[in-house]
Amino acid sequence: MDFFALKSVEEARAEFLEAVTRRMAAERVAREAALGRITAAPVLSPEDLPPFPRSTVDGYAVASADTFGASEGLPAYLTVTAEIPMGQVPSVPLNPGEAQKISTGGALPERADAVIMVEHTEQSAPDEIAALRPVSPGENVMQRGEDCLAGEPLLPAGRLIRAQEAALLAHAGVREVEVVRRPRVAIISTGDELVPPEASPAPGQIRESNGQALQALVLRDGGEPTYLGIAGDDERQILSLLQQGMTYDLILISGGSSVGTRDLTSELIERLGSPGVLVHGVKLKPGKPTILAVADGVPVVGLPGHPVSAQVVYGLFVAPLLRQMQGLTPEPEFRPTVRARLTKNIASTAGRTDVVRVRLFRQDGEVRAEPVHGKSGLISTLVRADGIVIIPSAREGLLAGDMVEVEVLA
Amino acid sequence: MDFFALKSVEEARAEFLEAVTRRMAAERVAREAALGRITAAPVLSPEDLPPFPRSTVDGYAVASADTFGASEGLPAYLTVTAEIPMGQVPSVPLNPGEAQKISTGGALPERADAVIMVEHTEQSAPDEIAALRPVSPGENVMQRGEDCLAGEPLLPAGRLIRAQEAALLAHAGVREVEVVRRPRVAIISTGDELVPPEASPAPGQIRESNGQALQALVLRDGGEPTYLGIAGDDERQILSLLQQGMTYDLILISGGSSVGTRDLTSELIERLGSPGVLVHGVKLKPGKPTILAVADGVPVVGLPGHPVSAQVVYGLFVAPLLRQMQGLTPEPEFRPTVRARLTKNIASTAGRTDVVRVRLFRQDGEVRAEPVHGKSGLISTLVRADGIVIIPSAREGLLAGDMVEVEVLA
Repeated sequence: MDFFALKSVEEARAEFLEAVTRRMAAERVAREAALGRITAAPVLSPEDLPPFPRSTVDGYAVASADTFGASEGLPAYLTVTAEIPMGQVPSVPLNPGEAQKISTGGALPERADAVIMVEHTEQSAPDEIAALRPVSPGENVMQRGEDCLAGEPLLPAGRLIRAQEAALLAHAGVREVEVVRRPRVAIISTGDELVPPEASPAPGQIRESNGQALQALVLRDGGEPTYLGIAGDDERQILSLLQQGMTYDLILISGGSSVGTRDLTSELIERLGSPGVLVHGVKLKPGKPTILAVADGVPVVGLPGHPVSAQVVYGLFVAPLLRQMQGLTPEPEFRPTVRARLTKNIASTAGRTDVVRVRLFRQDGEVRAEPVHGKSGLISTLVRADGIVIIPSAREGLLAGDMVEVEVLA
Repeated sequence: MDFFALKSVEEARAEFLEAVTRRMAAERVAREAALGRITAAPVLSPEDLPPFPRSTVDGYAVASADTFGASEGLPAYLTVTAEIPMGQVPSVPLNPGEAQKISTGGALPERADAVIMVEHTEQSAPDEIAALRPVSPGENVMQRGEDCLAGEPLLPAGRLIRAQEAALLAHAGVREVEVVRRPRVAIISTGDELVPPEASPAPGQIRESNGQALQALVLRDGGEPTYLGIAGDDERQILSLLQQGMTYDLILISGGSSVGTRDLTSELIERLGSPGVLVHGVKLKPGKPTILAVADGVPVVGLPGHPVSAQVVYGLFVAPLLRQMQGLTPEPEFRPTVRARLTKNIASTAGRTDVVRVRLFRQDGEVRAEPVHGKSGLISTLVRADGIVIIPSAREGLLAGDMVEVEVLA
């Protein structure tokens, strides 16, 4: 592969994402099963929230007009006629000159239009309070439907349901939610030297690990992984697994080790359907031999066999693809990072994207990022890094002492 | 509660975490079930990794001495006697003056001690290559055990098993992992106005949502939540649920709405066991009425009934506690944030911790953070925030235009 003939990461990704038109259909799930899913349509509130006017403080429900002009020097005296029990609608309407004791969240009685906080009153007689300041109409009251009106959206489409969304859905009495179906992802490994993790490798063989990593990453990103297994560097085996993969929403194929197998994989993907291979090789380190393809509507990504490279390619091409297929923007709008000072120079060629793994530590009151190197193939370096620094194609390396934005590996 | 008698968040948290001595025991799980768990002990490699010397490049296995002094002008000519198949140990030992073709990951033949990259050779005859530069002993070779020696740690104790750890464990042939048992967390809601999410509230009642949010948060943080249900603001019911909770590793009790219930809850927690309530009320907004207790070794956290406050208290006190119980540091060592410019002043009292929910957006090429306000009790504001800004007790508010570190809500 001639470096100058390769596409940049930015070009390759844009072309690939545009070519993938597949979007996941919607399915209805019970509210209890919606945690971690993405809404496929706005979720509408079945009813007014709150369903009745509620107090937002501990105090006394009043007619605000009864307090107008009240002050510490000249309080408004009100007769306390009831204490409103929580969870019940007050049975006694409020008459002029009266107040009813109310707790936060309590329902206002008829004709009350405000609540005066207990801190702004004094007990002036056993059944009487002195209001020491006026309250305006609606003060300390949440009106019926103020949180959300029946039929209005509680959640927009394309929203991940986290703890706070789950709480809101429960509060509104939503029973079912229309969510995006999980993308089904076929995972294939290639390489004559590979055996499954549960096998005892014969001399010269090693246990396959990319399939494990890719399954975990797909799960993390909302997909449903299926491991189709290992194909040797053999045309018939690879093609057979690729064809099985065509019933899934996405195919990930990692390896093989040799240049010949990589070219073979690309040729076999080409045979699956049109338009076929869009990108074979990107200006990326590590991850140059990446293959991006679409076959009869099914996206196919060929990842390098080296575990570190495979995870880099996953992050740059597969994670955004899975987001897009689920109705999200390919990149999160705001990506949290740790700002750290680089301990060493990192060389990079202009035009190439470099992804550098770093270890974080504290020194002299600041966070430092130290590049994690290690011979290609050393899989133990995988777990020594806390995060990655991406050097985009427009930059020519970074200098020791530069502040960098580190994406923590989740 | 007199504000000046309250503890700061920092004091309250330190005292509470020190008083909780409970740590989760270890349990053995199959490797396939270890994803998302935390190691309870170092995981040792069952064997040398790699189990044989491997090439890290595509090229020719050679005796390095045969290449000494080679240059483009005066290459070293070597006879190619074999191509090493992937996944097999080479059958033919290397003789002086010979080379064997090898792929990345291939096993070196006997007597070979280096690999020359294919790019540094030329085909000089059908069975002969010209080495255009010398290679030193060990060059482009990963030695047996270089990644990890048998019996040495692959992973330390206290490590979350993510995709990369799962890959390493598979690669090494680990079958079982000793992980930390998930903390079992009892969740109780109190409040006479509350009904379960699946119920139709009568007038004056509302559906409980804190239980849902807390279950989701506990799951996210590695715990195993059990929802014990709703107790009215009633002594007997609350005590009965608290006593059920004593068989769990942690009790979370949220609500009730009124001052009276909050004091009642504190008294009832006191009855569960010693040392009892350590903290009742912290200098925190929102979240002042927080209760932190330990009863006969079981930590108990009383959270405010208001959903926003409950989630703030969870983040500041419960999340660190769950980390500590699972053998991690209470706070992650490096917390990723989004740096954003604040759009509005935020007032805060010195000595008090303020947690402000913000919405993020882009303007003029930078990220802005806009405080999300809303009447207390408006639960829909829960889902309008992208993250939080914490104003620690030492600071007196923030100004519009200040750069702030926003923790994105996950």
